[in-house]
Amino acid sequence: MKILVVNAGSSSLKYQLLNMEDESVIAKGNCDRIGIDGHVSAKTGDGRSYEADCNFPTHTEAFEKLVEILTSGETKVIDSMDEISAVGHRIVQGAEIFRETCAVTDEVIDKIDSLAELAPVHNHPHALALRACKAVLPAGTPQAVVFDTAFHATMPRKAYLYGLPYECYKDLHVRKYGFHGTSHRFVSGELAKVMGKKPEELKIVSCHLGNGSSITAVDGGKSVDTSMGFTPLDGLVMGTRCGAVDPSAVEFVAKKKGFTPDEMTAYMNKQSGFLGVSGISSDNRDIQKAAAEGNEQAQAVNEMLTYQIKKYIGSYAAAMGGVDAVLFTGGIGENAPEVRADACEGLEFLGIKIDAEKNNCRGKLVEISTADSKVKVYVIPTNEELLIARDTLALISK
Amino acid sequence: MKILVVNAGSSSLKYQLLNMEDESVIAKGNCDRIGIDGHVSAKTGDGRSYEADCNFPTHTEAFEKLVEILTSGETKVIDSMDEISAVGHRIVQGAEIFRETCAVTDEVIDKIDSLAELAPVHNHPHALALRACKAVLPAGTPQAVVFDTAFHATMPRKAYLYGLPYECYKDLHVRKYGFHGTSHRFVSGELAKVMGKKPEELKIVSCHLGNGSSITAVDGGKSVDTSMGFTPLDGLVMGTRCGAVDPSAVEFVAKKKGFTPDEMTAYMNKQSGFLGVSGISSDNRDIQKAAAEGNEQAQAVNEMLTYQIKKYIGSYAAAMGGVDAVLFTGGIGENAPEVRADACEGLEFLGIKIDAEKNNCRGKLVEISTADSKVKVYVIPTNEELLIARDTLALISK
Repeated sequence: MKILVVNAGSSSLKYQLLNMEDESVIAKGNCDRIGIDGHVSAKTGDGRSYEADCNFPTHTEAFEKLVEILTSGETKVIDSMDEISAVGHRIVQGAEIFRETCAVTDEVIDKIDSLAELAPVHNHPHALALRACKAVLPAGTPQAVVFDTAFHATMPRKAYLYGLPYECYKDLHVRKYGFHGTSHRFVSGELAKVMGKKPEELKIVSCHLGNGSSITAVDGGKSVDTSMGFTPLDGLVMGTRCGAVDPSAVEFVAKKKGFTPDEMTAYMNKQSGFLGVSGISSDNRDIQKAAAEGNEQAQAVNEMLTYQIKKYIGSYAAAMGGVDAVLFTGGIGENAPEVRADACEGLEFLGIKIDAEKNNCRGKLVEISTADSKVKVYVIPTNEELLIARDTLALISK
Repeated sequence: MKILVVNAGSSSLKYQLLNMEDESVIAKGNCDRIGIDGHVSAKTGDGRSYEADCNFPTHTEAFEKLVEILTSGETKVIDSMDEISAVGHRIVQGAEIFRETCAVTDEVIDKIDSLAELAPVHNHPHALALRACKAVLPAGTPQAVVFDTAFHATMPRKAYLYGLPYECYKDLHVRKYGFHGTSHRFVSGELAKVMGKKPEELKIVSCHLGNGSSITAVDGGKSVDTSMGFTPLDGLVMGTRCGAVDPSAVEFVAKKKGFTPDEMTAYMNKQSGFLGVSGISSDNRDIQKAAAEGNEQAQAVNEMLTYQIKKYIGSYAAAMGGVDAVLFTGGIGENAPEVRADACEGLEFLGIKIDAEKNNCRGKLVEISTADSKVKVYVIPTNEELLIARDTLALISK
């Protein structure tokens, strides 16, 4: 059984082809710069690779290229698309309509498109990719949609409601949705496995830290709270996103700068965070380097990040009435031992003790807490594509 | 020694006259509806009272009335204003200029007025009251200003910086200032006394819950973090204020509603919170009643409040590396046992155990944790006027 996983953006179409017998990656790549000019990069699991400039006026041409790459030339891995059992798509925003993975129909595509207002950067391109996929693939190939928000559908209203007038929730659908759900679901599931427990037995604080970061309280296998909100802007300070800010300050800055709502939103999403506070870079590696060299603003943003993580760990432990394990994942979570160490420093009163030596690891599954740490702390590499493929397989196997 | 404490708003002038020998209240009242028409209500410590409509075009006429009330007629408590040793003023916003209580000079008044942009509702009226007071009182009467923000001046930058571009902090002075500082300082000091400890020995989570609410982490007698931010809007859901909201949601709602920044700010400050979510009332007593009667939106806001308090307790325990005591104060904190109970429920893992019987108290200093609760929990009635008077006395005694 081969499953194709697609993650479409406004100008990109990332894919992975997985062999579900052993969950290995057969091929992966990206059809990039759609609607601009076009560029493709592709790799196969056995080490072949291909890169070229192309012409992608729309997602349909990009999808045709994807088919060509998989079925012909240097990067050929299958004879025809008939070998693919199903396609799984990553979708950012499912709102309150899509609470779990489901099969794609024309109605589903239209509904995903209709949520574009709640996720302007993502949902419309997702719909374009879904339609392109349907047009290009052999008729009847099953497709599934897996939502970033779905894992958080279990949050109780006390966690997802804002203190805004109720009409904002009822009429404008403004509430906390949460994102990175596929990642939090994958890593919290992996953590339960490695601990030899059932998900139902565990209270987990799951820290996905990357260019975008979110922390989720996973109680008994279910998300009960998460740091991202109505959009992926809220919560922690991120690469170019500000994270939580006094709502009054948003309007104060917008007024002072003369920004429209869209301009202010862009300012908070693209010019803030590590980049905006440090004035140096959106990349945590650059921040760490500059901080080590004595740059004060880089030191400040570094302190902010680890302090905010620490507070979320305490906050979500309180939300769940305790915590059994903390996990780190994502680009920063998997690869920045100093961030993990600083975030957990001083949490001994919660039963959290990091082993400095074990923590000196990057990009692999490691238990980094001491043997006598009451709360277990792990690094768990995330793999959203694999979970999307598993979900898709499960759906067509029903 | 008699100290007059003044708390001026845009249309009101509240006062208390304290006898500092025994810290008793000699007289208190409010010159209200300044610039509208005018109304005065006054009480004396020995039970006399007076109420009347007046004419207060400006704070100066209101201050003249205050003098008349204290020195003549039914509510006379002193022969002349010469008997007053000093006047202490409550000031909301001291920003980074005023980090502690200080003596009033013309320059100080001008600086307070210059901060009006950061506290548009409060600081200009404060300046008007300071000038009125100076014009009416005997020449040379010392005056002191006590700032709501000053107690939070000890917050580290990791707590007060937002993830917005650094220019917002540097040029626009956008940072977390925190408010209710006088209350948090007073109650955390009282708590240390009643526990027989020095403030330096204690890690306290101080929950001031009223029409406006804030929670402060007090580590070793110093504020290290607090839930209100750049303005008193951020943090917990309040009477008419929304508290924390995804910054993107602010702009989304502003755009959808066609609000200007000022209109959106007013919407979040005056139509949100308990009132906006419940659609019933900004008063917690009404919310509790409606929730008990089965009103879903009232139940939702009630759950939100206690859940948010619970998360702050966990968050600030993490921020301080532990917690020795939690205190509740303010109108709700002192008088709503059910809010205290719900907020602390499930925090046994932190060593917090509430005694249901002891918790059934209102408006008085009571230890409400069980004898075996590792973390002590108290109700501590606040008294901001007394702390302002003490600060003022200390300043003139230097």
